[in-house]
Amino acid sequence: MSKNIAIIATHGFEETELKSPKQHLEQQGWKVDIISPESGTIKAWTDKNWGPEYRVDKTFDEASSEEYDALVVPGGVINPDKLRTHESALKFLKEFFDQKKPVGAICHGPQILIDANLVKGREMTSVKNIRQDLINAGANWHDEEVVVDQGLVTSRTPKDLPAFNEKLVEEIKEGKHKDPVPDDPSFKV
Amino acid sequence: MSKNIAIIATHGFEETELKSPKQHLEQQGWKVDIISPESGTIKAWTDKNWGPEYRVDKTFDEASSEEYDALVVPGGVINPDKLRTHESALKFLKEFFDQKKPVGAICHGPQILIDANLVKGREMTSVKNIRQDLINAGANWHDEEVVVDQGLVTSRTPKDLPAFNEKLVEEIKEGKHKDPVPDDPSFKV
Repeated sequence: MSKNIAIIATHGFEETELKSPKQHLEQQGWKVDIISPESGTIKAWTDKNWGPEYRVDKTFDEASSEEYDALVVPGGVINPDKLRTHESALKFLKEFFDQKKPVGAICHGPQILIDANLVKGREMTSVKNIRQDLINAGANWHDEEVVVDQGLVTSRTPKDLPAFNEKLVEEIKEGKHKDPVPDDPSFKV
Repeated sequence: MSKNIAIIATHGFEETELKSPKQHLEQQGWKVDIISPESGTIKAWTDKNWGPEYRVDKTFDEASSEEYDALVVPGGVINPDKLRTHESALKFLKEFFDQKKPVGAICHGPQILIDANLVKGREMTSVKNIRQDLINAGANWHDEEVVVDQGLVTSRTPKDLPAFNEKLVEEIKEGKHKDPVPDDPSFKV
């Protein structure tokens, strides 16, 4: 069955963390769109410097979460730091959780989940630099190459990409998930 | 009276956030050292790209907090993200709090205070991107050009540098401070 996947990113995304999941998901025969605050292109971060430009398929204003089956958040030090300040990005991300659709986030990508208030009570990993921020936001943080919690797939760094991509595909094939913490009345998505 | 000031930084520090406080403190007749995990030089971040190299005066292994009267933490998206993973940087920073010496942190600089467990109960500001991380770590966050709390001086962005520098000098002239939250038994420095 064909699937539509959204990757949200802006300038400074770690190139492999966008390129590798995009290629892997496209190899399943699925369509993958890059969604960003502004139209045009966004600049990758590659080998500790600015890298090539990638074409934005839709802006957050143009895209609707209803069109997509899953969402992926690449890292990079600069990209999620910028994206977490965009209300349109946080709203779009929240809608995937509301609709119980799979979400993958790698490296610094989980920073955005903190601002969208989507971390509390979740089993997660991330790059170690933001570990304490996730714990302070209520996550149960694990030092593992990939952590899956009811459709939420997280990984640490580019070297975890094979495991991240594999679990992403599994979760996307499974489709919509149950509520992550159904017994916790304080949990808000 | 002469003072010795430590600035802690690594690659990717926002150039003005190191250069401007350094110059301002040196204009008081004070000595300012750049302290970093490794010797040699560190590369600035200037106008959204890599900038000039700055000479490291001492590594964390070579420096002793006892030699210094105050400490400054510049921002940049990359610099504090790296520095917060260095145990030697966190230990050095904690010693200034233990010794009740003034500490200034600007922009993303306060990220390092999160990992050193120095944020709880403190009145602070920062760049808005890390606002939620500071609140989750227990800070009382304010959207002001400079916030001073018992020797801890914080500011938001480079445009706040004049206010930041002025308050830094005031706090350094005052010298050692009282305990920041003396009545809270859960507060640990």
